[in-house]
Amino acid sequence: MYKINDNFSALGHRYLFSEIATRVAAYQTAHPDADIIRMGIGDVTRPLAPAVIEAMHKAVDDCATMSGFHGYGPEHGYDFLRCAIVANDYKGLGIDPSEVFISDGAKSDTGNIGDIFSTDNIVGIPDPVYPVYMDTNIIAGRRIRMIPCTPDNGFTGEIPDERLDIIYLCYPNNPTGATISRQKLKEWVDYALENGSIILYDAAYEAFIRSEDIPHSIYEIEGAKECAIEFRSFSKTAGFTGIRCGFTVVPKKLRNLNYLWERRQSCKFNGASYVTQKGAEAVYSAAGMKQTRDTVDYYLGNARIIRETMSKLGLNPVGGDNSPYVWAETPGGMDSWDFLDMCLEKANVVLTPGSGFGSLGSGYFRVSAFGDRSRTLDAMVRMENMIVKGI
Amino acid sequence: MYKINDNFSALGHRYLFSEIATRVAAYQTAHPDADIIRMGIGDVTRPLAPAVIEAMHKAVDDCATMSGFHGYGPEHGYDFLRCAIVANDYKGLGIDPSEVFISDGAKSDTGNIGDIFSTDNIVGIPDPVYPVYMDTNIIAGRRIRMIPCTPDNGFTGEIPDERLDIIYLCYPNNPTGATISRQKLKEWVDYALENGSIILYDAAYEAFIRSEDIPHSIYEIEGAKECAIEFRSFSKTAGFTGIRCGFTVVPKKLRNLNYLWERRQSCKFNGASYVTQKGAEAVYSAAGMKQTRDTVDYYLGNARIIRETMSKLGLNPVGGDNSPYVWAETPGGMDSWDFLDMCLEKANVVLTPGSGFGSLGSGYFRVSAFGDRSRTLDAMVRMENMIVKGI
Repeated sequence: MYKINDNFSALGHRYLFSEIATRVAAYQTAHPDADIIRMGIGDVTRPLAPAVIEAMHKAVDDCATMSGFHGYGPEHGYDFLRCAIVANDYKGLGIDPSEVFISDGAKSDTGNIGDIFSTDNIVGIPDPVYPVYMDTNIIAGRRIRMIPCTPDNGFTGEIPDERLDIIYLCYPNNPTGATISRQKLKEWVDYALENGSIILYDAAYEAFIRSEDIPHSIYEIEGAKECAIEFRSFSKTAGFTGIRCGFTVVPKKLRNLNYLWERRQSCKFNGASYVTQKGAEAVYSAAGMKQTRDTVDYYLGNARIIRETMSKLGLNPVGGDNSPYVWAETPGGMDSWDFLDMCLEKANVVLTPGSGFGSLGSGYFRVSAFGDRSRTLDAMVRMENMIVKGI
Repeated sequence: MYKINDNFSALGHRYLFSEIATRVAAYQTAHPDADIIRMGIGDVTRPLAPAVIEAMHKAVDDCATMSGFHGYGPEHGYDFLRCAIVANDYKGLGIDPSEVFISDGAKSDTGNIGDIFSTDNIVGIPDPVYPVYMDTNIIAGRRIRMIPCTPDNGFTGEIPDERLDIIYLCYPNNPTGATISRQKLKEWVDYALENGSIILYDAAYEAFIRSEDIPHSIYEIEGAKECAIEFRSFSKTAGFTGIRCGFTVVPKKLRNLNYLWERRQSCKFNGASYVTQKGAEAVYSAAGMKQTRDTVDYYLGNARIIRETMSKLGLNPVGGDNSPYVWAETPGGMDSWDFLDMCLEKANVVLTPGSGFGSLGSGYFRVSAFGDRSRTLDAMVRMENMIVKGI
């Protein structure tokens, strides 16, 4: 009898956002007239930039002709996109296009990257954090150590006093919205260089950084090319959550990891859609850059409103300034899932329970700023009414 | 120091098609005027069907508006596509839409499916076969047994006399173009049921089946829902090699595999592009079905020409009738890679060396019928001249 991968039994039964979706759907079915405002999953809502739409139409038209048709592309992505990324996102940082791997999204890459590492590694995972790092390492059967991220360390993690082989970091952070300073990021890089660790740096929310002193890429830190892989995504930068495009930077200075990732991708992946890649390229056009930045600014405007409300309600918010997420304390230390249910039932607002991101997320919740402005304002009024006035 | 996955060192240095591409590029650089006809990689060349183009344009337009915008879709794919697949490809076979998982392609799925199985399984892999099955199991560190596919068994594999836990089958076959009869497929299903094995059935070339007695799906065989996962793709059916869409059927009768695959996908994948899925849906419209079938017929016309030429040259071809591939013997038992080089240099025709698909592929080569008709005819004249007239 074939054997299944028993590590799955150590996973939670449901992926966090699937569980929330099920609860919300059940509530909506029971209350068909309820006007639910969804601030749970971090999904964008604004249309794609006109420059991107135009490029995608053109790419579709290409595929309608013999001369413009594109079949299999390179597994690591088209050079036009790799070069645009290097010229814009890594200007002056000494990254070569051959170190950039285009994919269908950062979730796939942060999950699949484990294929190139032995299962015999000790993995450091922040608590709280985006659940994919934890779940994929449980599936692989690796030993895991939590890295506490608390108000005391500004949610940037306690530098471990033991040796960890693989370390996940995510800044601007999902879920806390916290950012990391150059100095603190240097401490992590120094730790990795001293301990022979690799840092898996998830910078999917990089486009939301507005403060000048916050690093956009880990490669701004000296030595990072010898110890870090960086993940980026067009999902939040340019609204590609449904279009699917991200990329991973694997410097050639990292032992043979660049070769291993190329080999993994050429073996288990067949490139991102041509239409998607042409759309992503347009993000770097002059019009595309302005349009996508305007949309990010719109979301940042929502984030400011959420942060101010949480502050006014005394819930000690983090994030929301250089991030689309606001992380706040539940009123009176209420259980995170109970607070989710309460907000759903009393305010018809969907949040994400902090404990879904790790045990240190207990007593917190995450609010997404990716909605409509007027709906965000409505949701804040509803939450204020619920918490302050008890209605 | 973090440890890499040492299993990679047991892989060939290059993915087969990457290696061929490098040789061809080197030849083209050295001979810029050479008019190379590419019949190596099985990549389609005809434009997408007008119905697909129209649907994709509409989907792009959706993403340009607030009301039509689509962000994250379900990780397992949109219901509109799952339902279209069940209604068309699995009509009368008792497959439920919840058993169908949409992805970015069959290569990803046949590679990633290993995540749900223990590394402690004995895997049976046909020889010769599409290299992804072998490479991904080497990466995972599983024990592998080869299943000989020879002219004696019509390239449908010798039923093993030992117990294998996981068995890969691919029909119509890549690379041999062979098909499998209902009776022989039943022998495999019976073997799997008796031995508690799981069959991973790759039916990516199903659309090329024209003979009425050849099964399109393994689920046409009684008992298959208790022992088989089936992979399909829009790549060859509808020219989606650059657009990226496939699907995997995991029946709920298979222990808890349906749940495990859902969990794997929700954890490491974020759904195929919305634009891609709308394009795939259009394949099942009346116009889409006719248009895509016409294109498949065009390729089958090429395949017939190739097969007839190989037959005339005395190279004992297989396939090419219900498949886009023709598999033939090298002249005089020549080494497959030497024959690739000879065809490239003397005829400026690119083939795939049989030994790239396994040791039993030695002395064979694969020809792809996915090219242009007149180019296919040219290539056959060139090969005939090279082999018969020595020019």
